[in-house]
Amino acid sequence: MLEQTMLEEVNKFMLGLLPDRHAVPELSNFYAMLRDYPLRGGKGLRARLVLLSARAHGAPAAAGTALAAALELFQNWVLIHDDVEDDSDERRGSPALHRLHGAPLAINAGDALHVIMWRAVLEANVPGAAEEFLETVFATAEGQHLDLAWIAANRWDITEHDYLNMVSRKTARYTVVAPLRLGAMAAGLTPDPRLTDAGLDLGVAFQIRDDVLNLTALFEDYGKEIGGDLWEGKRTLILARYLAGLTRAERDTALSVLARPRPEKDPVAVAALLKDIQASGAIEAAQATADEHARRGLEQLRAVLQGLSGQDAAEEILALARQLALRGA
Amino acid sequence: MLEQTMLEEVNKFMLGLLPDRHAVPELSNFYAMLRDYPLRGGKGLRARLVLLSARAHGAPAAAGTALAAALELFQNWVLIHDDVEDDSDERRGSPALHRLHGAPLAINAGDALHVIMWRAVLEANVPGAAEEFLETVFATAEGQHLDLAWIAANRWDITEHDYLNMVSRKTARYTVVAPLRLGAMAAGLTPDPRLTDAGLDLGVAFQIRDDVLNLTALFEDYGKEIGGDLWEGKRTLILARYLAGLTRAERDTALSVLARPRPEKDPVAVAALLKDIQASGAIEAAQATADEHARRGLEQLRAVLQGLSGQDAAEEILALARQLALRGA
Repeated sequence: MLEQTMLEEVNKFMLGLLPDRHAVPELSNFYAMLRDYPLRGGKGLRARLVLLSARAHGAPAAAGTALAAALELFQNWVLIHDDVEDDSDERRGSPALHRLHGAPLAINAGDALHVIMWRAVLEANVPGAAEEFLETVFATAEGQHLDLAWIAANRWDITEHDYLNMVSRKTARYTVVAPLRLGAMAAGLTPDPRLTDAGLDLGVAFQIRDDVLNLTALFEDYGKEIGGDLWEGKRTLILARYLAGLTRAERDTALSVLARPRPEKDPVAVAALLKDIQASGAIEAAQATADEHARRGLEQLRAVLQGLSGQDAAEEILALARQLALRGA
Repeated sequence: MLEQTMLEEVNKFMLGLLPDRHAVPELSNFYAMLRDYPLRGGKGLRARLVLLSARAHGAPAAAGTALAAALELFQNWVLIHDDVEDDSDERRGSPALHRLHGAPLAINAGDALHVIMWRAVLEANVPGAAEEFLETVFATAEGQHLDLAWIAANRWDITEHDYLNMVSRKTARYTVVAPLRLGAMAAGLTPDPRLTDAGLDLGVAFQIRDDVLNLTALFEDYGKEIGGDLWEGKRTLILARYLAGLTRAERDTALSVLARPRPEKDPVAVAALLKDIQASGAIEAAQATADEHARRGLEQLRAVLQGLSGQDAAEEILALARQLALRGA
């Protein structure tokens, strides 16, 4: 309950930083574009982690409000740009921003949200937090570069090591590491260095699990296009494992589907590929890797959290981490 | 001479914030993308204005180094995104970044440079400067939105008022207002509010003059494609004046050229349109408007600067402003 109220505070803080109306109608349209993704209502996962980590570290959860809002703003502008970069159809059940307004206006709206993210960071005025955002945003861009560069170069020889390096930067850093650390900073403490390792393991497990759900979930549960990663040609651990188990001829067939640009892909061929991947055991193998990272991350996280003053919040963090990173949770 | 040495310091500071090599080759490629535009060597106009304004306000020019670098980083990431948004061919005599690497990687590289701009701002640690960047970057995005939204909506009924509102936000703010104000802040002073009005007038004059040069300069002097604004369908004051002077039939003919997407434009038709615009008097009329803004801006700027302690630098600022904003200077 408390947590729900606090999330509403985060949302209010975030929307309060976004301008609303302007006498020039085109600028009102611009402001509406900035509010679009934030108003679609994400899960607020990263905000929850910031608030819980602040409480676990002994601060009132309210101490994390501005930083939680900043991280949600980060998520929103990154998603706008990601959707352009991946040419995604949808986001949170509605058309992606660039599908509604074209890529030029969407890129520019993402830039504007980026600067508003910095306003939230600076208004938070928490020692260490600006540096954390500098490093987190840059690491995320590095991970995104790896992901996109493989696609641009049509590279499919991605190893498990390559994949883990990519998702550590692209997802784990801002999804788990930064929220845990920012919570500590909001409490006026220096983050325990073990939070970084724990967060990387949990974030990697989270991303692999998301890749798994992308190919196995029911649409109602997942809320995104099932098999979307195949349509977009995303390099995942599942795909690396699947391709490694094929004969050269089978591999050529699979790549002839995967490497084709989205608009030229044949839905029947994509469906057949999805079925073959599901039958190959690659999904279970990837899930096992995720479980291993999740277990290691949870163990280390528990070790750090047990020394903290806010044990109720610490328990909630562990429950949330389990839910995110573990199969069937 | 002193100024040249200082500009080299700015450049060194800027490049020092950009990572160089990484064990993962794709990340070295990423870092090379970040360095590409900065290494192409812009004119450093905004950096010079920051340094000169710092000196005019009584600080050693070195006090403005980090902020000058931050503004140059801003220019670089904005140009990367602008080039994607406008689908420009070239930048500073070489192919635009997205022409070399594709739009997805270029958008992402721009985001990474944006965050490095914030590192420069925060390292500068000058009171008021972060707020100035928050407002300047946001205003620039507003101006860019207006420009792009008119293109997206295929609107050609842009008035002088619309145009001036757009370029005040998109160009004048970060080209003249912010450098003048940041220099004052680097000297530990609160910027004189009249600097804002002066900077807006001078920035508007600068942009109109740039629009004029786009249609009249020799390539050797301008360094960019002559008539590029017509190819890109840019809304300019010149075009607004030109279109307003046409009969309905002539206007339809002109718009049939302007509104066509770049790849479908006929070079012969573009050349004929350019000739007709040059013959129409619209360029001279726009230049007269620029001169009016330039004179007003210079007058106000002179009034502010004459009260400052660094009169050598104040004279240099006025000379630079004249050069930027006035015809044939």
